Amino acid sequence: MTTATTPSRNTRTDRASLTREAILTAAERLFAEHGVFAVSNRQVSEAAGQGNNAAVGYHFGTKTDLVRAIEHKHAVPVEKLREERVAAMAGKDAGLRDWVECLVLPLTDHLTALGNPTWYARFAAQVMADPAYQQTVTRDALTLPALIVVLEGINRCLPDLPGHVRVERNIMGRNLLIHTCAEYERALAEGTPLPLTNWRTAASGLVDALVGLWLAPVTR
Amino acid sequence: MTTATTPSRNTRTDRASLTREAILTAAERLFAEHGVFAVSNRQVSEAAGQGNNAAVGYHFGTKTDLVRAIEHKHAVPVEKLREERVAAMAGKDAGLRDWVECLVLPLTDHLTALGNPTWYARFAAQVMADPAYQQTVTRDALTLPALIVVLEGINRCLPDLPGHVRVERNIMGRNLLIHTCAEYERALAEGTPLPLTNWRTAASGLVDALVGLWLAPVTR
Repeated sequence: MTTATTPSRNTRTDRASLTREAILTAAERLFAEHGVFAVSNRQVSEAAGQGNNAAVGYHFGTKTDLVRAIEHKHAVPVEKLREERVAAMAGKDAGLRDWVECLVLPLTDHLTALGNPTWYARFAAQVMADPAYQQTVTRDALTLPALIVVLEGINRCLPDLPGHVRVERNIMGRNLLIHTCAEYERALAEGTPLPLTNWRTAASGLVDALVGLWLAPVTR
Repeated sequence: MTTATTPSRNTRTDRASLTREAILTAAERLFAEHGVFAVSNRQVSEAAGQGNNAAVGYHFGTKTDLVRAIEHKHAVPVEKLREERVAAMAGKDAGLRDWVECLVLPLTDHLTALGNPTWYARFAAQVMADPAYQQTVTRDALTLPALIVVLEGINRCLPDLPGHVRVERNIMGRNLLIHTCAEYERALAEGTPLPLTNWRTAASGLVDALVGLWLAPVTR
């Protein structure tokens, strides 16, 4: 009996896992292109080739659960790349630029590894522009150990800034990084002429800009 | 006969102008909240209280024409504020921070003058995230004389940067400014706690950050 049921169970598991993957891919692209609010679970199910319009609900639950699952799919490899960078810095006298590189490069290297076209940067930009999803995704991100080490590293290297300026620069840095990556990703995907041709070049400019933003004199 | 037709014509003109205004207001809010792509002309007509679903088409033409009309409605007072700031700088030895203030403050002062809640910053963020509308709105903006004077002023004060770095910093600065203003606007509208309580405080932090971004050393 065991040998008879195991293959059938595996087949069912494989099929469920393929369906989940198809839904994640379709949803990421639709959310990236049209915004999370604008896309219904029904449209995602259809785009994923599911005859059953309730497929998203069955496999993921709510739309928030689906957004979290897409983010998680990328957060895992990005966190792994970040761990490697953090490990490589051990014993070095790391400065602000090193820590900002540990923030930016795992993201841009992940986008490089996915191969053009990607939708993750545009998906992230849409998610971060929605306060409810932004909170959920940020809460999930703050459970990633390497990311926390990097954010603490950046914090240690900053000049003595008033608390509210730190908060504002966090917001501005996040908007600069996420929305510029989204714009670059769209240009790379659509073949629009840009001054940069790959993510590694883009990353260098982003790191310089973020360091400049964080170190800017406070006039207020 | 003339005295008989004139009032009726005026009434018709007034009514048309009220309808146009109602459509602009409804569309700005819907586009700001849900994105330009996600909202149909029919939804705009309904939200503007127009029984006729073709009202947007009749009064504005295409969706692009409607987006341009909303942008124009704000660009006129922003340009006027910018003209005043540029005029006040005449004869002074203006530096980068002065020119960046001429870029940012007319926008934040306009948002202050509109009174909370506003939707324009979120509308602009949605428009700038869509390549087609971004191009159209940018082309329209580059006919505004005071804006051009300010952009040239910023350009003259920059260190000697490679051409591609200038282009990248333009993109990063625009994303920082527009998406941070959109996030602040949403927080002010929804009463979310923020480190800043008004646009003038926000503007000071934005100007510092943009100056830091523009002056950041180039490592590449």
